[in-house]
Amino acid sequence: MKNSFGSSLTVTLFGESHGEMLGATIDGLAPGIKINHEYIKNKLDERRPADKTATARRERDEYRIVSGERNGFTTGAPLTLLIPNENTKSSDYESLRDTPRPSHADYTAECKYHGYQDYRGGGHFSGRITAALVAAGALVAAALEARGIYIGTHIARIGAVSDDSFLELREDELKSAITALDTPAPAFLNAERGRKMTEEILRAAECGDSVGGALESCIIGMPSGVGEPWFDSMESQIAHILFSIPAVKGVEFGRGFGLCEMRGSEANDVYYTDGRKIKTKTNNNGGILGGITSGMPIIVRTAIKPTPSIYTEQDTVSLSNMTNTRLKISGRHDPAIVGRARAVADAALAIAVADMLAVRYGTDWLSGK
Amino acid sequence: MKNSFGSSLTVTLFGESHGEMLGATIDGLAPGIKINHEYIKNKLDERRPADKTATARRERDEYRIVSGERNGFTTGAPLTLLIPNENTKSSDYESLRDTPRPSHADYTAECKYHGYQDYRGGGHFSGRITAALVAAGALVAAALEARGIYIGTHIARIGAVSDDSFLELREDELKSAITALDTPAPAFLNAERGRKMTEEILRAAECGDSVGGALESCIIGMPSGVGEPWFDSMESQIAHILFSIPAVKGVEFGRGFGLCEMRGSEANDVYYTDGRKIKTKTNNNGGILGGITSGMPIIVRTAIKPTPSIYTEQDTVSLSNMTNTRLKISGRHDPAIVGRARAVADAALAIAVADMLAVRYGTDWLSGK
Amino acid sequence: MKNSFGSSLTVTLFGESHGEMLGATIDGLAPGIKINHEYIKNKLDERRPADKTATARRERDEYRIVSGERNGFTTGAPLTLLIPNENTKSSDYESLRDTPRPSHADYTAECKYHGYQDYRGGGHFSGRITAALVAAGALVAAALEARGIYIGTHIARIGAVSDDSFLELREDELKSAITALDTPAPAFLNAERGRKMTEEILRAAECGDSVGGALESCIIGMPSGVGEPWFDSMESQIAHILFSIPAVKGVEFGRGFGLCEMRGSEANDVYYTDGRKIKTKTNNNGGILGGITSGMPIIVRTAIKPTPSIYTEQDTVSLSNMTNTRLKISGRHDPAIVGRARAVADAALAIAVADMLAVRYGTDWLSGK
Amino acid sequence: MKNSFGSSLTVTLFGESHGEMLGATIDGLAPGIKINHEYIKNKLDERRPADKTATARRERDEYRIVSGERNGFTTGAPLTLLIPNENTKSSDYESLRDTPRPSHADYTAECKYHGYQDYRGGGHFSGRITAALVAAGALVAAALEARGIYIGTHIARIGAVSDDSFLELREDELKSAITALDTPAPAFLNAERGRKMTEEILRAAECGDSVGGALESCIIGMPSGVGEPWFDSMESQIAHILFSIPAVKGVEFGRGFGLCEMRGSEANDVYYTDGRKIKTKTNNNGGILGGITSGMPIIVRTAIKPTPSIYTEQDTVSLSNMTNTRLKISGRHDPAIVGRARAVADAALAIAVADMLAVRYGTDWLSGK
Repeated sequence: MKNSFGSSLTVTLFGESHGEMLGATIDGLAPGIKINHEYIKNKLDERRPADKTATARRERDEYRIVSGERNGFTTGAPLTLLIPNENTKSSDYESLRDTPRPSHADYTAECKYHGYQDYRGGGHFSGRITAALVAAGALVAAALEARGIYIGTHIARIGAVSDDSFLELREDELKSAITALDTPAPAFLNAERGRKMTEEILRAAECGDSVGGALESCIIGMPSGVGEPWFDSMESQIAHILFSIPAVKGVEFGRGFGLCEMRGSEANDVYYTDGRKIKTKTNNNGGILGGITSGMPIIVRTAIKPTPSIYTEQDTVSLSNMTNTRLKISGRHDPAIVGRARAVADAALAIAVADMLAVRYGTDWLSGK
Repeated sequence: MKNSFGSSLTVTLFGESHGEMLGATIDGLAPGIKINHEYIKNKLDERRPADKTATARRERDEYRIVSGERNGFTTGAPLTLLIPNENTKSSDYESLRDTPRPSHADYTAECKYHGYQDYRGGGHFSGRITAALVAAGALVAAALEARGIYIGTHIARIGAVSDDSFLELREDELKSAITALDTPAPAFLNAERGRKMTEEILRAAECGDSVGGALESCIIGMPSGVGEPWFDSMESQIAHILFSIPAVKGVEFGRGFGLCEMRGSEANDVYYTDGRKIKTKTNNNGGILGGITSGMPIIVRTAIKPTPSIYTEQDTVSLSNMTNTRLKISGRHDPAIVGRARAVADAALAIAVADMLAVRYGTDWLSGK
Repeated sequence: MKNSFGSSLTVTLFGESHGEMLGATIDGLAPGIKINHEYIKNKLDERRPADKTATARRERDEYRIVSGERNGFTTGAPLTLLIPNENTKSSDYESLRDTPRPSHADYTAECKYHGYQDYRGGGHFSGRITAALVAAGALVAAALEARGIYIGTHIARIGAVSDDSFLELREDELKSAITALDTPAPAFLNAERGRKMTEEILRAAECGDSVGGALESCIIGMPSGVGEPWFDSMESQIAHILFSIPAVKGVEFGRGFGLCEMRGSEANDVYYTDGRKIKTKTNNNGGILGGITSGMPIIVRTAIKPTPSIYTEQDTVSLSNMTNTRLKISGRHDPAIVGRARAVADAALAIAVADMLAVRYGTDWLSGK
Repeated sequence: MKNSFGSSLTVTLFGESHGEMLGATIDGLAPGIKINHEYIKNKLDERRPADKTATARRERDEYRIVSGERNGFTTGAPLTLLIPNENTKSSDYESLRDTPRPSHADYTAECKYHGYQDYRGGGHFSGRITAALVAAGALVAAALEARGIYIGTHIARIGAVSDDSFLELREDELKSAITALDTPAPAFLNAERGRKMTEEILRAAECGDSVGGALESCIIGMPSGVGEPWFDSMESQIAHILFSIPAVKGVEFGRGFGLCEMRGSEANDVYYTDGRKIKTKTNNNGGILGGITSGMPIIVRTAIKPTPSIYTEQDTVSLSNMTNTRLKISGRHDPAIVGRARAVADAALAIAVADMLAVRYGTDWLSGK
C-alpha cells in the first residue's frame, strides 16, 4: 500500500515540496456527497502558516478537483485533487545535499532512495505534502459532519505548558468546543494557557530554536461497534495514519501513558444508563475498548517533536567524504509545527474513521443515501 | 484484513479464550528457516503466568505446527500452529453475560456482534489469544536473530516507579541487555527499581486491585532504509500491531511524548561518523526518521492499562433490563499484565519488522538464502 | 496476501496433501449466520472421489470448526475449520523427488522453495487443499442461499463433447437447474450428453490417460450495482480466485471467447422492461457490464486441463544430475478432475461474491441482520 | 483497493472520458529507473486511433509527469502522470442519459452510482482511461526490458480469422517477433492473415457494425519461481488486471480452453535439459505451473467483445419512465477495439509482472540496483 491508506475508502498522496504540484486521490467515496469547498478552504487555512509562530513561506494552496466530481457532488469514481506549488526556493537546499540535516529525513531518504530522491525542501517527506492530505481529509470530514460525526483538535501542550483536556469536558460541551476550534489561529480550550503556549513558541523562535508540543483530538458522534479486535483495532488504524504525519512520535488514547500510574479501580470506566443509552462515567479508554468504538467520544493525543530546522549550527556528516562537519540551516521554518498540525490531525482522523465506517456499513454509508 | 497483519509476511490469528483451541497462520515465510522450538518455548514461558504477579490460570501452551514445516524447516507454504485450551472454567463467566465488565470489551463486543460473540473469558478479545501471537512472533524473531536483528522488552514503569531506559545505554551495551531479558521472570534493566516495581504490583494485588505500567522495547541490527514516508512508516506499522494488543493505550518512539517539552536544539539527533558508519549521538527519534529506519536502535514504549478485572465491586448496567446495577468479578486475574505483555510486544515487533524487511528485500530475505 | 483471498470477507488456506491436517480460516463473517453443516457435507461429498471417474484415494473429509462458532452460529470472530489427512501414502512420492512430473507444480515449487517444499503428494499445491476451500466456500454459499443467491456448476465439456449451456435456459428455469446439480455424481444439464462425457472420461482412464474439460457456473439472485470499474471488477475478482484453483487455465464470462466471432449487433444485450424490472433479452455479457453486476445471472466458464498424472511413461529431467530421464507415475489419480472441481468452483464463487457484497453493503450484510 | 492494482508496485487510475484530465499514480517504483519517454510515447501511439479501423476521435495523449521524477529518473516516491482531455464532444452523450446503451456500462453505473456518475462518454468506464494505464504500464515495461523481460501482443483473431500463435514459434524467434509488434499499425504475426483480419474489421465498419476479437500476449525473460499457489497465482494476478480492461470477457493461458479437448498425454509439457537449463518441449501451460512461473514464456490470450457502440438502432429502456424504447447511437466509435487494446494488454501485463517481481525480490529489483 505504501502511499495509500484505507481499505474501503482509500487516500493516495503524491508530490514533492518543490515539484510542480502535489495531490491526493480519494477512492471509494460514496456517490452523491456534496463537496463542501468552504469547509475544505477553512481547513487549508488552518494548516497554512499565518503568523509569527509559523514559517515565512506562504502559499495559497488552491486545490483543483480534476476527477470524480460532477455538478458539485462526488460521482463515486476516484476523486483527484491537485495543488500547484508556487513559492519554492530550491536554491536554499542545494548546499544541504551532502550534509543531512539532523532529525530530518535527509539521511534515511538517502539510505532508501540511493541519491535519487528529490531532496529539495524535503521532497516527498515535506510537511508541504500535508496540504494535499488536509484537502482530502477535509472533504471527507465535511461528509462525516453531515452524518453527525464531528472532529476537532487543539494544542494540548507546548513545552512545559499544558492546555485543558477534552477529558475534563462534559459530553454536552464537546460539540461547541470542537466547533470553536475551526479557526486558522492557534487554537486552545483554555485561552489563558493558550497565551502561555504561544509565548513558549515565540521564545523559542527568538533564539532561532524550535519547540515541540502535543495535540489532543476528539471525535464525537461515532457509532458504537466499529473496529476489530485483531489487528485492525480502531486504535491501530488511527495510530497508523497519525504516525505517518511528519514529526509525530507518540500517540495515546484516553488517559494513555497516564494509565501506567493508575490502579484498575481508578482507571476503569464504569457503565451507567439513563434507560435509553449506555455510557461510561469516565472516558479513560478514549471511546475504544477491545479495538471497538463504545459510542463515547474518541480522545487521542499526538506528540509532535520540535521542528528539526533550527538556526543554530549543528554537527552533521559529509556523505560524500564520510567526514564530520558542521551545518547551518537557513531558509524559512516554523518554530513549532504543532499549530499547523491541528488541521493535519483532523484530516487524518477523518480518513481513518470514514474508512472504518465504510468497511462496517458499506460503500454508500458516507453519503447517507 | 482484520485478523491478519502484514503484507509480504502475514500473520492471521484465530481462537477464543474458552474455545477448543487457538492458533496462528504465518504466510509468506521464506522457505528454509530452521524452526527454533526452544526459542518459541522460552517466549511462551515469558508470557505464561509464573508467580504471584500473575493470574492463577496455568496452561502449558503446547503448540503444534500442522502445516508449513518439514524436517524442522519452513517449507514456504503457510505455517499454522495450534494451541489447545485446557484450563478453562466457563462457569466463572456465565453470570457476566448481561452485565459488561468495566473497561473490558464485553460491551463493545455486544455492539458489534449482537450477542453472538463468545463471551466466555473474553472470547476472541482475551489476552489468551496472545499465546498464539507469541508463538508465531517467536518463530519469526528467532529467524531475525539468525539475521543479526535482536528484539527485547523490559518493564519500563509500574505505577509511580520507572526502570532505566534503553536510551541511556551505549550501543555496545544493548545486545547483552536484550539477551538478559530472555527470562520468564518479570524483567528490568535496573534490579533495584525492578524490586520496587514488583512491590507495586503486589501491593495492588493485596487490595484486590490492579496496576498499569509501560514497556520499553529495543530492536538492534535493523538495516537502514526500511519503511515508507506515507502511509506505511515504520512507526505506523509498529504502532498498528502494538495497538491491537489488548490493554495497550499508548505508543511512543524515542523520547516520544517527552519531545513535547524539548527544544529542537536539545531534541535533534546530530550525526557523526567514524569514517565507516554514520550514527547519531543521541537517539531521541528512536531509530526512525521520516518513517524510515536510520540504522540506530529502534526504541518504542508502550502504555499498558491496569488489568480491568479487579475484585472490588463496580458499577455497571444490565443490558437486558437497561438498568444500573453492580458487579463483582470473581475468577482468576493478573494484578498487572505488563510483565506477561513483554513477550507479546516482542512477538508483535518481530512480525512488524520481518514484514517490512520482506517487502523491502523480497520474500527470501528472512532465511538468508 | 498470498494464501488469503478477499477484502471484507477473507479466506486463508493452509495445509499439505500429506501433512497432519489442512484447514481454512474465514475472517469477516457476519455474526449470527446459522452454520449449515448438511450443506457443507453435501458439497464435500460433491468434491470427494466417488466412482471410476475419480481417484482411488478416499477420505471422509471430516471437518471440525475450532473457532468462530458458538451454538451453531458464527460469532463474528475468525472461523477456523480443520480437516485431518488420513489416507496418505507418502512412499508413492519418494521416487519423484528428483524427477519433476510434467505439468505438475513439482518443478516450479523447486524453483520457488529451493527444495524445502513438502513434495509429498503435491504438498500445498495438491488438489487435496481444495477440501478446505470447499468447506469454507460451502459455509458461505449456504449463507448466500439464505439471502436468495444461488450458485451452481455443471460439467460443460469433456474432450469433444459439450453439455447444454445455462445461457440457453430461461431465467425461471435456472433455479431448479442449479438445485438439481447438488449431487455427488458428475452433473450435467443434459443427461444424454452427460453420458457421452462420462464415456470420454472412462475411455481416457482405460488408456491410463486423462482428459480435460470445462465447467460452467451460474449465480442467480445477485443484486445489481456490485463490482468496480478499475481494478476490482466482478470479473477480476472471480477470475482471481478461479485461477488459483489447480488445473484451471481459462476463464470466460457470458459468451467469452465466442464473442471474438460475433458482430456487435449480435453480441449486444439489449434492454427491456416489464415496468418493474430492467433485464436484457440475451446475456452474452454474463451478468456483468463495466465490471459491475447488472442483476442478470452471472455466467462463467472455466477450462480445466487434463490431470497431469497419467500412467504412461514420460520424459523428464533429473534435477540433481541435470540429465534427461524418463518417469512412470504410479499412485492413485483422477482420469478427469473436472467432475470433482464443480464443488470447488462453487466454493470459490461463493467466497468471491460474498466478499464483494460485504464490501458493498457492510460486514453484517451476509447474516441478513 | 478498487481503482488501485498491485501490492509492492501499485498503480492507481483516475479520470473520466470528458473530465478535465485523467491520470495514473505509480507507487513503489524503485528509485533510479531511467524514464524512457520514447517508449511511453510509442505505446501511447499504439493505443491511439490511427486509421479506418478506429474511432475518429483523435487526441495527442500528451502526458505530463508531475511527481516522482527528477532529472529523468524515478525518485522512488509516487509517480503521477496526467493526461489532459482535449477533443471531447459531450453533447453527443446528453441524449443517452436516460436510455442506457446496450452492453455498455451505462445501466450498471446507474445501479451503482445512483445517477451521480459522470455519464458523458462513459465517464470513468471509458476506454479513454486506458491512455493513463498505457502510459503507466509503458513506463514499467521499459524498465522490465532493461531487466531482460519483453512483452508483446498481437491480434490473434478477428471474427472468423485467426493469426498464428506464439505457441508455434521457437523460443529463439520470440524476441524478434515481440519487437516487430512495436508499431502503431494493427499488428499480427502472419501478414497474410493480418490482411484478412483487417478486412473483417472494415466489413463490419461498412455496415455500421463492430466486431470482436482476441489478443495473444507473450512475456519472455521471466525468472522462474515467481507467483503463489493460493490465491495470488501468476494467472490470478494477470487475469485480475486483464479483466478490468473494458470489453475483456475471457482470459486463457497456454492452450487455455483448448486443453478441454486434450488428453493428458498430449497436454503435458515434458521436461528436457541441455545440461544447463531446464525447459519444456511444449508450452501448453503458458509458462505457469501451480501458479508459479517456470521460466518458459508466459502466453496469455484475451477475448475482446465487439465494440458495443454500433450505428444500428437498438432496443433499450427509458430509466425515468420504465418503458421500452429504441436508441440510435451517434458519435465516434471504433469498429473494433482489439487493435488499440494491444498496448493496453501490454501495459496491464507489465504492471502485473513487475508487482510480482517486486514482491518476490524486493522493491529495488526493477531498477537493477
